[in-house]
Amino acid sequence: MHFGLVDEIIVPSCIIGLLAALVQFLIIKKISLDPEKQELSTSLTGEVPEKLVPEIYAKIMDGAIQFLKVEYAICCLFCLAFSLVIYFLVSWGTHSSTQGALTAGAFLTGAFTSMLCGFLGMMIATYSNARTTLACAKKGYTEGFNTAFRGGSVMGYALCSLGVFVLWLLLTFYRTVYPEADDWEILFDCAAGYGLGGSTVAMFGRVGGGIYTKAADVGADLCGKVVAGLDEDDPNNPATIADNVGDNVGDIAGMGADLFGSFAESTCAALVIAAAAVEGSKHTLSAAGWDAMLFPVAISAAGIVICILCGFVATNVAPVKVEADIERVLKVQMVLTALLMLPVIYYLAVLLLPAHFRLEGVRLNEDGIQAEIHGTPFKAFICATMGCVGGLIIGLVTEYFTSHSFIPTRELASACKFGTAVNIIQGLALGYKSCIIPVFVLSSAIFVSFQLCDLYGIALAALGMLATLSCGLTIDGFGPISDNAGGIAEMALFNPEVRRRTDALDAAGNTTAAIGKGFAIGSAALVSLALYGAFVIRLRVKTGVNILEPTTFAFLIIGCMIPYWFAALTMKSVGKAAGEMVAEVQRQFSKVDSKGKTLLTGSTELKPDSKTCIQISTQASIREMVAPACLVILSPLAAGTFFGVQAVFGLLTGSLGSSVQLAISMSNSGGAWDNCKKYIKNGFSEDVELRYTKNPQTEEEKKAAPKAREAHDAAVQGDTVGDPFKDTSGPALNIVMKLQAIVSLVFAAYFAAINHGHGLIQVQ
Amino acid sequence: MHFGLVDEIIVPSCIIGLLAALVQFLIIKKISLDPEKQELSTSLTGEVPEKLVPEIYAKIMDGAIQFLKVEYAICCLFCLAFSLVIYFLVSWGTHSSTQGALTAGAFLTGAFTSMLCGFLGMMIATYSNARTTLACAKKGYTEGFNTAFRGGSVMGYALCSLGVFVLWLLLTFYRTVYPEADDWEILFDCAAGYGLGGSTVAMFGRVGGGIYTKAADVGADLCGKVVAGLDEDDPNNPATIADNVGDNVGDIAGMGADLFGSFAESTCAALVIAAAAVEGSKHTLSAAGWDAMLFPVAISAAGIVICILCGFVATNVAPVKVEADIERVLKVQMVLTALLMLPVIYYLAVLLLPAHFRLEGVRLNEDGIQAEIHGTPFKAFICATMGCVGGLIIGLVTEYFTSHSFIPTRELASACKFGTAVNIIQGLALGYKSCIIPVFVLSSAIFVSFQLCDLYGIALAALGMLATLSCGLTIDGFGPISDNAGGIAEMALFNPEVRRRTDALDAAGNTTAAIGKGFAIGSAALVSLALYGAFVIRLRVKTGVNILEPTTFAFLIIGCMIPYWFAALTMKSVGKAAGEMVAEVQRQFSKVDSKGKTLLTGSTELKPDSKTCIQISTQASIREMVAPACLVILSPLAAGTFFGVQAVFGLLTGSLGSSVQLAISMSNSGGAWDNCKKYIKNGFSEDVELRYTKNPQTEEEKKAAPKAREAHDAAVQGDTVGDPFKDTSGPALNIVMKLQAIVSLVFAAYFAAINHGHGLIQVQ
Repeated sequence: MHFGLVDEIIVPSCIIGLLAALVQFLIIKKISLDPEKQELSTSLTGEVPEKLVPEIYAKIMDGAIQFLKVEYAICCLFCLAFSLVIYFLVSWGTHSSTQGALTAGAFLTGAFTSMLCGFLGMMIATYSNARTTLACAKKGYTEGFNTAFRGGSVMGYALCSLGVFVLWLLLTFYRTVYPEADDWEILFDCAAGYGLGGSTVAMFGRVGGGIYTKAADVGADLCGKVVAGLDEDDPNNPATIADNVGDNVGDIAGMGADLFGSFAESTCAALVIAAAAVEGSKHTLSAAGWDAMLFPVAISAAGIVICILCGFVATNVAPVKVEADIERVLKVQMVLTALLMLPVIYYLAVLLLPAHFRLEGVRLNEDGIQAEIHGTPFKAFICATMGCVGGLIIGLVTEYFTSHSFIPTRELASACKFGTAVNIIQGLALGYKSCIIPVFVLSSAIFVSFQLCDLYGIALAALGMLATLSCGLTIDGFGPISDNAGGIAEMALFNPEVRRRTDALDAAGNTTAAIGKGFAIGSAALVSLALYGAFVIRLRVKTGVNILEPTTFAFLIIGCMIPYWFAALTMKSVGKAAGEMVAEVQRQFSKVDSKGKTLLTGSTELKPDSKTCIQISTQASIREMVAPACLVILSPLAAGTFFGVQAVFGLLTGSLGSSVQLAISMSNSGGAWDNCKKYIKNGFSEDVELRYTKNPQTEEEKKAAPKAREAHDAAVQGDTVGDPFKDTSGPALNIVMKLQAIVSLVFAAYFAAINHGHGLIQVQ
Repeated sequence: MHFGLVDEIIVPSCIIGLLAALVQFLIIKKISLDPEKQELSTSLTGEVPEKLVPEIYAKIMDGAIQFLKVEYAICCLFCLAFSLVIYFLVSWGTHSSTQGALTAGAFLTGAFTSMLCGFLGMMIATYSNARTTLACAKKGYTEGFNTAFRGGSVMGYALCSLGVFVLWLLLTFYRTVYPEADDWEILFDCAAGYGLGGSTVAMFGRVGGGIYTKAADVGADLCGKVVAGLDEDDPNNPATIADNVGDNVGDIAGMGADLFGSFAESTCAALVIAAAAVEGSKHTLSAAGWDAMLFPVAISAAGIVICILCGFVATNVAPVKVEADIERVLKVQMVLTALLMLPVIYYLAVLLLPAHFRLEGVRLNEDGIQAEIHGTPFKAFICATMGCVGGLIIGLVTEYFTSHSFIPTRELASACKFGTAVNIIQGLALGYKSCIIPVFVLSSAIFVSFQLCDLYGIALAALGMLATLSCGLTIDGFGPISDNAGGIAEMALFNPEVRRRTDALDAAGNTTAAIGKGFAIGSAALVSLALYGAFVIRLRVKTGVNILEPTTFAFLIIGCMIPYWFAALTMKSVGKAAGEMVAEVQRQFSKVDSKGKTLLTGSTELKPDSKTCIQISTQASIREMVAPACLVILSPLAAGTFFGVQAVFGLLTGSLGSSVQLAISMSNSGGAWDNCKKYIKNGFSEDVELRYTKNPQTEEEKKAAPKAREAHDAAVQGDTVGDPFKDTSGPALNIVMKLQAIVSLVFAAYFAAINHGHGLIQVQ
């Protein structure tokens, strides 16, 4: 074995990424939590806060570790069991136990890498949150922003570098088993297990984390409502710590695993398609050699370096100085990385790909015979560009619909004047409406890249969208870290100015997180189409997928239904777990101490018992996450086993089409409700009836106070409905479509082997 | 021309249907509204009510007529303009201006028949409502039930008979133009315009009526909330009359037109498929003659007679005696008609169809070549049975999820304890969950009938589901008539016992209406698949519909998005119009008369001005109904014109899959919220905290009163959110899928003629 050009791109990039993550970590580490060792305070802190910070920090850290331990124990058990299933079914389907073992091995590697990434991300996020609070308190915006941003970037750089590096290791090792280009089709089939592993863990992470965080959040909010006047993150509310833990396990570990899965899967899809043998042609990518094959991995690797360079711009070259800078700096990051990526992709394509190559595809020509697909580096570049730019547009549209700087959310705020019901109706309508442009962008990207390079083009578009993943993850991590920092400021009784600063970070983080969600959904759609295509190519179907077959169409409708079933399961779980949380908090509130006082009336003996709340969230999410995950993983397996590959085609088509809409509309409705509440609560509106203040000052405000209070309450209800929408069901739907597609791909040979692909219940 | 066997079945059935409608009408007419001529009162009425009834009756009647006038004026304008479009495009596409003229003629015939049916239905419904109130007041359950049931059945019998008869006339006339069996393919192509006409008017009726009724309903509810303690149908609320008018124009005229459209379209789909030429075979249905061709129409005609016979059972053989009988009697109707239909369908199949026949289909065999489809009367019977029984199951599942006699809605009521947000979350989850079984039933029906008779089988399944349409319409009409009767009882200040009786009728009507909605959605899915198939067959596509084509897949995603876009438009319209209604009612409430009193503080000078409210609802619905209708009608036209038939295939596939889920989940969420509110409001629960009473009596009730009040308020909010779900957007989505498919079918020749079906923006 020798190392080629592509290896010289991938390996150093990964090492640079890991080193950059380490450097960022060391910079954060300099901020000490120990009150003794803390630097000189400014006027914004007193004696109390510094002492409370380490205590709260420890609680959040403990809760998060406790949850991940249990979650990952279940994950490990499931993955081990499932790897056996993979081993046996793939071995049986391919008549090769080597292939079965390698696929199962790739699966386990992907799963454990994903868990490792999730764990690292969560640790660094919890590590950074208290330090962000202190940085905000002692040094102001620049340091506060930089600490949160660095926290996010440690996760972003480390996760991407690890993901790419482990995949590279795996491929290099498998290449020793299958050294010949003729066998690479099998090699990359096995490697697809890596994507499946990543996505399986992502499913548990997203659903488990999502239920955890929203059970705590909704529960805490509802208690706040029951005991009117209790603020968010009130230290007396025992569910507050669980809520803060939830931000870390849901938004960090879950989101990280999700995007890691997308990245792993899109790479695998591109590799499988690229390796597919084209009959009677020597001008394929595999014939051109390892460098050409690994072009998709090189894109991801180069993206890491670009993001590191751009990150340096945010923290050092043009740092945040005042509040207004925050959102600008984050947005510049997104646009800058995307723009810089384009020439790099072009350069890599010209460098690594042959000037002309043939691809195996699925399109048919006029006579119903497979069309010949010819690729060039330029075409490949255009495909990736469609993804990269498309992702940016989808992100910006998401922002337009969910940020309270724009009309839709402001209109939603006006609707709150008419009460909760109108707010909910209009919020749902907003979410539905927000599907329109992203879907047009997505379908344009699909149309163009499909035309140019068939399904390889789709895979490249997905990779183009995910090329700047490190930057996306940095910003995604930035949000929850700031959110937690705010919670700590509140609980540690810091001066309100500190909370104002963390809130400013959080608000900007929320907006950009919405953009990140847009990216996640868009890339998931492209990834699953690419995987679906890889599945079809892998099965060597030469006649296309005729949707007007009885089995296919029947399963198309079922496929469209799966996301609804999934959403029903997850939303019901959140509702149920939130109910348990409310009961526990009410129990604690009703406890009376020896002096006849309760937690809320200033008891000095009673302490809020956050541990029980953490346990409730943990148990509920562990209990409830298995059913939805099984639904998604088992549905294509069952369809293929009993009704054959035509059924799987239908299922994947329906599920993809339906998931995209539901995911976008749920995420955006939820985001808009959240920001609509912030808009009213923080008094941003010019309409005095939408400007909620606890202590109205002017005559005008006093007169409008009851109406403003009503609008505020309606907005809070909307926000609570939106919680499971935007943080549990919506984003998990990304994984529904991807996971179903990659399960199908990995088990393709097995499906094909059952009764010649017709399934056990043979229908002819 | 001579009349054959099938004519001897169809014409007498229609005449019997029209006569039966007339008889029922004459029976209702015997109840006089004139206080002078009313029969002797029992203890349940006083002097006042009888005098108020005619006045209220006149207001509702006026409002309804006023709305329909404006709505139908717009409809007529649109239809005339669109018929010109049809004439020119079809003439151009087929190179035959005869064909263009006949298609446009069929379109106008369908449109005007639909309007006539909607108008008749609405007139008879408003005619019956006040009479139902009086029957309930004076004679008790038997007469009350029978009056409402007869009112519904006039609409059911007349609508079906007219629909079948006009279609028969049209076909018989067109047969004089195309007498030869070889030309029948063209004949039935032209006749498809009839379905398009019906569905176009249905779209306006559903959307316009839906916005009208919910703007009034939501507006009235919100005012009731603003002015706490105002009951539903309070005579002082000026929006009440508009609400009652809305029931008639939305639930009667809209629903009637919708189902008329389904029936017309499924018949047209079956006829187009049956007439499609099969190359090299003489054993086709058209070769077998007119009788065999018109088998689908004969099923509908026979269904009318069956429903009349069964209706006689409800009103005379085993009439309602006590309250508990009502729901049973209605359910017996549904099951009985469905069961009796089966042998009739079998008999008709054997009588009219040849023992063996070949059909043009879309399935491919293993080699990607069109499969040969052979039908028999028995296979045809099984297909229709799948639809007939499948519809019943879907209906019963709908009932399970929305009736408060079963667990799901009761669980939803318990969720109300935790406030509005949890109620909304769980209600949405309930709707999503309720998709599961109906989708499995639908896909089984599709699978089996597709296997047996290809797309002809799907069309027969749709017809089987709609065979008992007269019964379904009777029950659908029964609900709003009873609802209105209750409103009149309240406004005319009848003894509360009268209201209790009409409420009992209404409650049973609600449950069975939910079943009817299930039928409507299920049949719409089958109809649109059949139309989609007819479109594919019509285009002579021999290679199936390959979903993995760039254009097709891109438009699949867009198709999946269309229902969301549509729902966004309609829900936003309801929210906006409801806001206008609230403003108007508040204006009226704040008016002070010369004695310083307002409407609500007992002013004798001021009268609630219901006319302005009616105008607001009318104008809002007319203004807002055009955009959604255009979206649905123009999207396939635009796709086909610019991107070719592949784009239309994708659009139809996506829209069908996505609409089904959204329609089911919206209708059922809305239904469950409505019944959940009734469950709490009427104090049906054993849990005292869920038993809302205005005047708590026992100690236990007094203690639980604040909690019960809170649960009740949460339930009311849920009901308000559900209003546009279940009565505007949800049911209108039926029409989205059907209308897009029939537009495509009618313009098939036009699409095929543009650049050989590749569209103006040629993509090769």
